[in-house]
Amino acid sequence: MSARKKATAKKAGRKAAKKSAKKSGKKAAKKNTRKAAKKAARKSAKKASAKKPAAKKSNPRASAAARKPASRKAQSVFSFGDGRADGRADMKEVLGGKGANLAEMNLLGIPVPPGFTISTEVCADFNKAGGALPRAVKAEIATAIAEVESIMGGRFGDPDNPLLFSVRSGARASMPGMMDTVLNLGLNAETVLGLAARAGERFAYDSYRRFIQMYGDVVLNVPRDRFEMRIDDTKHAKGIDLDTDLDIEDLKRLVRDFLEIAEEQTGRPFPSDPMEQLWGAIGAVFSSWQNQRAQIYRRLHNIPEEWGTAVNVQAMVFGNMGDDCATGVAFTRDPSTGERDFYGEYLTNAQGEDVVAGVRTPQPINDASRTTDTQDLPTLEAEMPKAYRELVRIYKRLEKHYRDMQDIEFTIQQGKLWMLQTRAGKRTSTAAVKIAVDMAKERLISREEALIRVDAASLDKLLHPTLDPEAPRNVIARGLPASPGAAVGVAIFDSERADLRTKAGEKVVLVRIETSAEDIGGMFASEGILTARGGMTSHAAVVARGMGKCCVTGCGALDINYEARSMRVGGVEINEGDLISIDGGTGDVMLGSVPTVTPELGGAFDDLMHWADKSRKIRVRTNADTPEDARIARDFGAEGIGLCRTEHMFFEPDRILRVREMILAKNVEERAKPLGRLLQMQRQDFVEIFRAMDALPVTVRLLDPPLHEFLPQTEAAIKELAEDLGTQVAKVRASLASLHEFNPMLGHRGCRLGVTFPDIYRMQVRAIAEAACIVDLEGVAVTPEIMIPLVSHEDELKRLRAETEAVIDEVRSQYPGSKVKPAIGTMIEVPRACIVADVIAEHADFFSFGTNDLTQMGYALSRDDSGKFLPEYVDAGILEDDPFVSIDEEGIGALVQMGAAKGRSTRPRLKLGICGEHGGDPKSVKFFARVGLDYVSCSPFRVPAARLAAAQAAIEEAGA
Amino acid sequence: MSARKKATAKKAGRKAAKKSAKKSGKKAAKKNTRKAAKKAARKSAKKASAKKPAAKKSNPRASAAARKPASRKAQSVFSFGDGRADGRADMKEVLGGKGANLAEMNLLGIPVPPGFTISTEVCADFNKAGGALPRAVKAEIATAIAEVESIMGGRFGDPDNPLLFSVRSGARASMPGMMDTVLNLGLNAETVLGLAARAGERFAYDSYRRFIQMYGDVVLNVPRDRFEMRIDDTKHAKGIDLDTDLDIEDLKRLVRDFLEIAEEQTGRPFPSDPMEQLWGAIGAVFSSWQNQRAQIYRRLHNIPEEWGTAVNVQAMVFGNMGDDCATGVAFTRDPSTGERDFYGEYLTNAQGEDVVAGVRTPQPINDASRTTDTQDLPTLEAEMPKAYRELVRIYKRLEKHYRDMQDIEFTIQQGKLWMLQTRAGKRTSTAAVKIAVDMAKERLISREEALIRVDAASLDKLLHPTLDPEAPRNVIARGLPASPGAAVGVAIFDSERADLRTKAGEKVVLVRIETSAEDIGGMFASEGILTARGGMTSHAAVVARGMGKCCVTGCGALDINYEARSMRVGGVEINEGDLISIDGGTGDVMLGSVPTVTPELGGAFDDLMHWADKSRKIRVRTNADTPEDARIARDFGAEGIGLCRTEHMFFEPDRILRVREMILAKNVEERAKPLGRLLQMQRQDFVEIFRAMDALPVTVRLLDPPLHEFLPQTEAAIKELAEDLGTQVAKVRASLASLHEFNPMLGHRGCRLGVTFPDIYRMQVRAIAEAACIVDLEGVAVTPEIMIPLVSHEDELKRLRAETEAVIDEVRSQYPGSKVKPAIGTMIEVPRACIVADVIAEHADFFSFGTNDLTQMGYALSRDDSGKFLPEYVDAGILEDDPFVSIDEEGIGALVQMGAAKGRSTRPRLKLGICGEHGGDPKSVKFFARVGLDYVSCSPFRVPAARLAAAQAAIEEAGA
Repeated sequence: MSARKKATAKKAGRKAAKKSAKKSGKKAAKKNTRKAAKKAARKSAKKASAKKPAAKKSNPRASAAARKPASRKAQSVFSFGDGRADGRADMKEVLGGKGANLAEMNLLGIPVPPGFTISTEVCADFNKAGGALPRAVKAEIATAIAEVESIMGGRFGDPDNPLLFSVRSGARASMPGMMDTVLNLGLNAETVLGLAARAGERFAYDSYRRFIQMYGDVVLNVPRDRFEMRIDDTKHAKGIDLDTDLDIEDLKRLVRDFLEIAEEQTGRPFPSDPMEQLWGAIGAVFSSWQNQRAQIYRRLHNIPEEWGTAVNVQAMVFGNMGDDCATGVAFTRDPSTGERDFYGEYLTNAQGEDVVAGVRTPQPINDASRTTDTQDLPTLEAEMPKAYRELVRIYKRLEKHYRDMQDIEFTIQQGKLWMLQTRAGKRTSTAAVKIAVDMAKERLISREEALIRVDAASLDKLLHPTLDPEAPRNVIARGLPASPGAAVGVAIFDSERADLRTKAGEKVVLVRIETSAEDIGGMFASEGILTARGGMTSHAAVVARGMGKCCVTGCGALDINYEARSMRVGGVEINEGDLISIDGGTGDVMLGSVPTVTPELGGAFDDLMHWADKSRKIRVRTNADTPEDARIARDFGAEGIGLCRTEHMFFEPDRILRVREMILAKNVEERAKPLGRLLQMQRQDFVEIFRAMDALPVTVRLLDPPLHEFLPQTEAAIKELAEDLGTQVAKVRASLASLHEFNPMLGHRGCRLGVTFPDIYRMQVRAIAEAACIVDLEGVAVTPEIMIPLVSHEDELKRLRAETEAVIDEVRSQYPGSKVKPAIGTMIEVPRACIVADVIAEHADFFSFGTNDLTQMGYALSRDDSGKFLPEYVDAGILEDDPFVSIDEEGIGALVQMGAAKGRSTRPRLKLGICGEHGGDPKSVKFFARVGLDYVSCSPFRVPAARLAAAQAAIEEAGA
Repeated sequence: MSARKKATAKKAGRKAAKKSAKKSGKKAAKKNTRKAAKKAARKSAKKASAKKPAAKKSNPRASAAARKPASRKAQSVFSFGDGRADGRADMKEVLGGKGANLAEMNLLGIPVPPGFTISTEVCADFNKAGGALPRAVKAEIATAIAEVESIMGGRFGDPDNPLLFSVRSGARASMPGMMDTVLNLGLNAETVLGLAARAGERFAYDSYRRFIQMYGDVVLNVPRDRFEMRIDDTKHAKGIDLDTDLDIEDLKRLVRDFLEIAEEQTGRPFPSDPMEQLWGAIGAVFSSWQNQRAQIYRRLHNIPEEWGTAVNVQAMVFGNMGDDCATGVAFTRDPSTGERDFYGEYLTNAQGEDVVAGVRTPQPINDASRTTDTQDLPTLEAEMPKAYRELVRIYKRLEKHYRDMQDIEFTIQQGKLWMLQTRAGKRTSTAAVKIAVDMAKERLISREEALIRVDAASLDKLLHPTLDPEAPRNVIARGLPASPGAAVGVAIFDSERADLRTKAGEKVVLVRIETSAEDIGGMFASEGILTARGGMTSHAAVVARGMGKCCVTGCGALDINYEARSMRVGGVEINEGDLISIDGGTGDVMLGSVPTVTPELGGAFDDLMHWADKSRKIRVRTNADTPEDARIARDFGAEGIGLCRTEHMFFEPDRILRVREMILAKNVEERAKPLGRLLQMQRQDFVEIFRAMDALPVTVRLLDPPLHEFLPQTEAAIKELAEDLGTQVAKVRASLASLHEFNPMLGHRGCRLGVTFPDIYRMQVRAIAEAACIVDLEGVAVTPEIMIPLVSHEDELKRLRAETEAVIDEVRSQYPGSKVKPAIGTMIEVPRACIVADVIAEHADFFSFGTNDLTQMGYALSRDDSGKFLPEYVDAGILEDDPFVSIDEEGIGALVQMGAAKGRSTRPRLKLGICGEHGGDPKSVKFFARVGLDYVSCSPFRVPAARLAAAQAAIEEAGA
């Protein structure tokens, strides 16, 4: 496997390079998505294979006679070969992915080396029995071997015409951590002579050498380098460089040496009995299900231990028997771009492992597969036209049958084509969209299937600029890929300076130990954010994702010195103003400037989004705090603003002083002046936002964070503030002390500020109402919704609603002719609010679930602190997902469900939405759709993902 | 009313003084409870009158003919007099408390001045109609007046034989904020002549003068001092001191002057038409329901606005017509001690208001009522034996009828006794217990009724030492009465020194700006705690109540200077070592030493507790962290320990260093040494606790708070720690920084510590298990229960349970013969845990609801921070109760209910308890009993209150 992956990766790079020579315009974008493909592929490996088989229906061409009756309970071994098979594609649970597809290909009449699959159910029995194969299974295997022998003509262990086997694992889900393959099984001192007589001595002993080496490594656990060193010694002694320069005597001696090494390491002679070899290989596959790597992999990918793995035993076919032999891999469409090109590479006279060695450059199978590196090499199409035509016929058949892009493996032995594997091919996000849309247009799949096929979470990545994958990278550290995209700029270590330098025209990467609300301005000004502490859900990560900015967090290797305005990473010292680059997709931190590329969203993307909008029922809004955000989000298809956080406006440099003046005021009278100034500023913001959203609803949340978040924390900043306001440092410090809270999350914030400082909320309501009237009178429709946060008791909302209505009435009387009537609702983010949602609903026109805080309080998890133990929790398997990324359905989700049901029990038409980070997480969006919410709201760049997830939810529900 | 209250208070003091002369032993205790009586009385005023009338059944002596048919809907005015009445005692909703009892006394044949009650329903109509009395009601009143006239012989407004009325308000619940009384209504220039002819000129004009003054004040809103100043001027001009020295001409002139003053102030002549006077007085009573004081009072006492007040109009009887006249008040039993003594005071030739003036000392009604001040005065029994005998007959009848101690008012007019009021008498907590128990023994009430009658919350106060109420107090400031009792000691401003000075034999009052976990040791060592900040539920308050220590919090007047080890209060400077006293019942802070007294719990208390234990179903445990606590709680009747907080043991001075060493350790190896030392210490604690509890269950909670709570915060302490541990200051500081949390409540604590530092929990489990085995092998039964805190996900408990069981198994194998098998359960304190309680229950032998944290998280209220806005919330009426004092039933209570139901759905016999502060709050205890929990656990001093509340819950449930 790993051989093929590496090959594919290399090739992707080469191909991209070649293509770029032709189409220079799209060059960078394509290269970039190519490279990303590998990552995505690795990540989605499990997901893809865990999905239901694409071909659910039985194949009409496979005759009924070809299938055995479904007495599966007793059957442990499933034969296939020569157009017949006991299994089929939808039996992955029993046969594993590889075995099921081998059976299916047989049924399709595609040439597959005959063999048999030992079912996953045997795996559990085997491990329970302490590593023993049941007698009945052994008998079934013997029968199956006989069937293969009758097809192939040779016999397993026959010294004259030996049949050799490959043995491969194959679980329901692909598991790279497990034992993989043993080739050439069945060779020993006698059978090697028979093979030599038929295929040549050199081929026979080379195969024997390879077998001992693989079996020794995989089954007997002999350290791999013991064999490799012996080969190196031999080459060194002879003064040669290549394996192919070894002569027959060398190979024979190596065989003898390898047998000795194996005996020395295991204390027992290397097994010469082919059946003993076979039991050993089968046992090794089953045991590998329990090895540590497999266990870790299963835990990380939520694969149940009960699943077990199957074992596939197949007759060997050889791509290395001569120049009329070859081995290769191919994709039925371009896995990087999704274009409808048959795409692959191969080597003549080679076995798969030769590709790993990297000595020979694989050749393109056709002209479409050429890259700059391979433009002069002959193609399979040219070298073996007959086999190529057969391969084309087969790939088309497979794609049509499986109704998806396939990743196939083949071997050509003496001109005859054998298929070794087919499976759904991994692809980049770009390719996934293109392939799904094309296939729907080709009527291969329905539009609904196309929508389901694309991983909604991957869309996010399509929208962000990324680093040019071809450009050299001087990676100096790696953190967590907290928000996708890329950023290049000068390193700046504090937010105010970041803002200044940006205004001076520079591109800035803000570098902080960790960020807090004070850094919002600097983050907003910067290209990207890099922090030394904090996880995927730290302040920096969440805010950056909200802003659609690239962010790398938790990069522990950074030793940041704020005073010196510099940091050390390993041996490198980076000072303020030095250029750095960060990659939010990988977490890489690089010295210097790496060029970036912006992906283009093609017509396929637009088609898919268009179809999604027709399918979905739940609406998608955006969280946007500025007119600019609002415009971006509309372009991404947002149907309104679900959360406009007024306090984010407060952090802008020209406003924060007024805000601080307001906070430090001793009473209502002193607060009046700064509030008046803020009123003007906020009103102008809302005017622009309302204009940008033109009739679409805009939910504005009144002030939420505790006031101390707006005050400076450092001594210097405190001093400066005191000077700016003409007051004493001691007074500012006293204010800070009196506002300090032990648990600000549970403190004096949200509507509690509205109750204790009614003038602040009144100012905000006035700004919203006046802006709405102004825009309304301009002839632009406005749909303002005023949201009161952190309500835990119905009386809070009752009281604040009355005050809000009073201000609105007053404003309306000042703008005669305006018919603006803002809705008034609340954020449901306190657990208690869910429980008493029925009484709260009496005073609310709408609910918006604030699932971030609901998770923090309901789960007792502080988002800013949980990074200290959440990773251990996920490692230990206590938590499957980070509950801040995907909603915890059974706990916090149940609270949302309760709140929704209780709210609607009072007010059946209550509008229900959700505006936490979860609004952009596809899994969560589906949950919210199931629960019956009217809309989700997420950051602008996640809007397309939410639209797609919403469509998927509707399709899944209709299908359920 | 206020006159009577003051009189009663004075008298109580005097009586106490007198009694003390006789029985010197019990002197202080009794005095103290006397004084406390007033406070309690005032507080419980509303509660008592809101209760259902004691006499539910109709009085057998009242003939059926005496009652009108119950066509109440149409009836607005209810007459009474001469043994007949339209109303009765159980009609308080319609007649108000006073009116209902006046009717009832009539039906009992007790002499009551005839009159009528205008129903509460008229109040709403009146106020809705903008202050107009419906015509039909006026007609009913006219009829009722005629009935009174026919009984009394005089006529209202008749110049020859004028009938005068008193007009009094009377709501369902007593409302001191409302208009009270107008006497002598019906007097004018003509009728005063008729009165003069019949009762003498001086009496007539004095009555007229009083009437104008009262009516002017209460109905016409003429400032009271305008009248008083005129009297003073007159006396000054004549050179006399007493009102009684005014001659008839003076009185006549005052009448003229008063009429002028009233006209001048209101712009209209003083009403001379008696009917107009009456409409004015009735209207004033109804309007007073809406005045600001009444509104505030209603909000504070949860009295619905719809209730309205009734108006009682009664024929005047005069206690001031001569020496055969008198007026007085009495209690049917001693309101301070509850002893079965008829107890009261009176004045001859006086009206109620004369008592207010305080010029004459009221006389005791009998020998039992004498005090030191009144020991030489004649008694009513001696002066008017006939009237006294009648009074005795009546009080006995009333007490028997109402089946409760009564507070009565009477007037004797020319030898004839008239009863003006009867109602349940306010009493001290001590008296409440004694009276309830005595009455049950007298078979006047059932034992169940006796249990219901005593306010469970008041028991707490009975158990704490208090300041001698007779001793002089130099009060310098007042804070919040956060934990009852009293403390006298030297002021010490830091916890370590508090501990040192205590060990040196001094009594200490710990004074802090606010307290934190670091102060636990100092608080434990001190007699009492005084803080400048924090509310009734601040750290200091909660911990102090838990320890049963006196505490005054939020005393903002203190200006504490830690460095100077002193504080300033007003002008006074108090230095370390100066003696101060604090009163946890009032919040008083006093300079110097005030003697304290410890109340004795008599046999009545024991009887009551014994009956309570027989009635209740829910068990009562205690929260105890030390063997001493455990012993105290057992004495108070605790049936086990529901919460033993292991971390409180960590704060003891000889341990905290080991704890800190453990926290600062870099890895498991480094932690091993301090953990080993802690193991020995904790094991010894548990041995002693198990011995003290002897077979009763002991729930030990494993380490809960975040580790940073154990580290020093000040620079000096950090330096000291670094020295003690032989490490660098920078290292300690780095540890502190890395442990810092933004929201510790939602942070790395509870079972999360168990997951990330398994060795700490293993040490604790080992200590518990070893201690249990040791005590078990001594032959003392042990029932240990190990509680894992802060579980939010079932896998946390599953994992930690397995580790706990493994340690227990290991320990058991080391103590052969021991059959100890600790139960393993969890604290349910995270909202999510309530929601998924069914799956958590799979791994739990018991649940204990941690309602403190559940409230903090479920309500988004940080207990340490909410003091900044909670008071405004309660003032604004948004919150009725502090949710940390009484469980918020509809929100947090619903979560508890859900958790309980879900837990039992998995495990029907799951043991359920609650161990938050609410476990000691009677209202909450009743809720938990209703919800079906098995036990509550509270601090030792609150155990009796919980036992009583539990009994009340069972009785109420049986009655429901």
